[in-house]
Amino acid sequence: MSRRQDIIRRATELFERKGVSSTSFEDIAKAVGIKREGVYYYFKSRADILMEIILPESSTLLMSLKNILRTTMTPREKLEAAIESHLARFNPSYLEMSVALQESHVVKNEERLAELRSTWQNYSDLWVALIREGQANGDFRAELDPKAAAFGILGMCNWVSRWYDPRGPLTIRDITKTFSVLVSEGLVEERVAQEPALNE
Amino acid sequence: MSRRQDIIRRATELFERKGVSSTSFEDIAKAVGIKREGVYYYFKSRADILMEIILPESSTLLMSLKNILRTTMTPREKLEAAIESHLARFNPSYLEMSVALQESHVVKNEERLAELRSTWQNYSDLWVALIREGQANGDFRAELDPKAAAFGILGMCNWVSRWYDPRGPLTIRDITKTFSVLVSEGLVEERVAQEPALNE
Repeated sequence: MSRRQDIIRRATELFERKGVSSTSFEDIAKAVGIKREGVYYYFKSRADILMEIILPESSTLLMSLKNILRTTMTPREKLEAAIESHLARFNPSYLEMSVALQESHVVKNEERLAELRSTWQNYSDLWVALIREGQANGDFRAELDPKAAAFGILGMCNWVSRWYDPRGPLTIRDITKTFSVLVSEGLVEERVAQEPALNE
Repeated sequence: MSRRQDIIRRATELFERKGVSSTSFEDIAKAVGIKREGVYYYFKSRADILMEIILPESSTLLMSLKNILRTTMTPREKLEAAIESHLARFNPSYLEMSVALQESHVVKNEERLAELRSTWQNYSDLWVALIREGQANGDFRAELDPKAAAFGILGMCNWVSRWYDPRGPLTIRDITKTFSVLVSEGLVEERVAQEPALNE
């Protein structure tokens, strides 16, 4: 493994364990067993390191959604697979930062930022396409705005980074199940139609 | 109006128009018609000003939800009113920053930060209570985890700050409608039960 790869791997471990904002260059250097300057030789900032982690992660997420959309599953099954795929790759600390990365001033490398943006753009476009597909064949409610619905679902999933506690009782699996039912069937319990009571 | 109030009012206008991250102390000072030092006399940072805006906003949001829960509406009606109340007060630039404020190092004033946190905690607790109420009386699906459902809905609403464009074609009203249906009835269109085809 190259020194550069070693830095990325150790930083990934630290980001996962402590979160990005609590991980210093000092911590990363220590984990690699080099001096702080050694990390600076390869990366100008934590944002640069994170970019190297997030770019491949984002591409994997995009690829996974493309594969789901290519299958012969029903739109509903695709929807559930897409939620599962999104949350399965879910790492709160990355996501937290991928949000921060959208503030372009954090990252100086404009070219890589553009690459990340275009991946995200493709990814959300595919989500909108999934909703439209389901609406077109009558599986999904036609009255919903497809963009608002798609971004609503993505938001639901992404916001998990604000409240999910890996040490808490609720697992990503539980969250995935609840979100799947919530999004496809809604909160409201269907009632068995009752016979009107006879008033006599 | 006191100088302090004037600063808050001008800062609010600027935050709404340009976003918090693009508004400098210089901009605020100019809008008030004073020197930059004049703003520093009252506030140490943009985060301090924002705190003064967000705290009352958050209390209003909490109060509004409390009032909704006190009514005799059905859980489903309460849910829709709660989504509407949340999105109606929605200001992307505040929300963006209220997220940032959760990183405690941004705000030095620990006491006010604690106040903000407790408001948010109460607010999300009430959302969970709303879901539980609906589950208890059979209106909402019992198999959903109430915390995951409540935070999922809040996430859906909060994430709007990441993609909503006030100059775009989609209004907050459109988004509210789509989210309401999505969350209460789900994406999947109910089908009229069909008679099984007779194979002859």
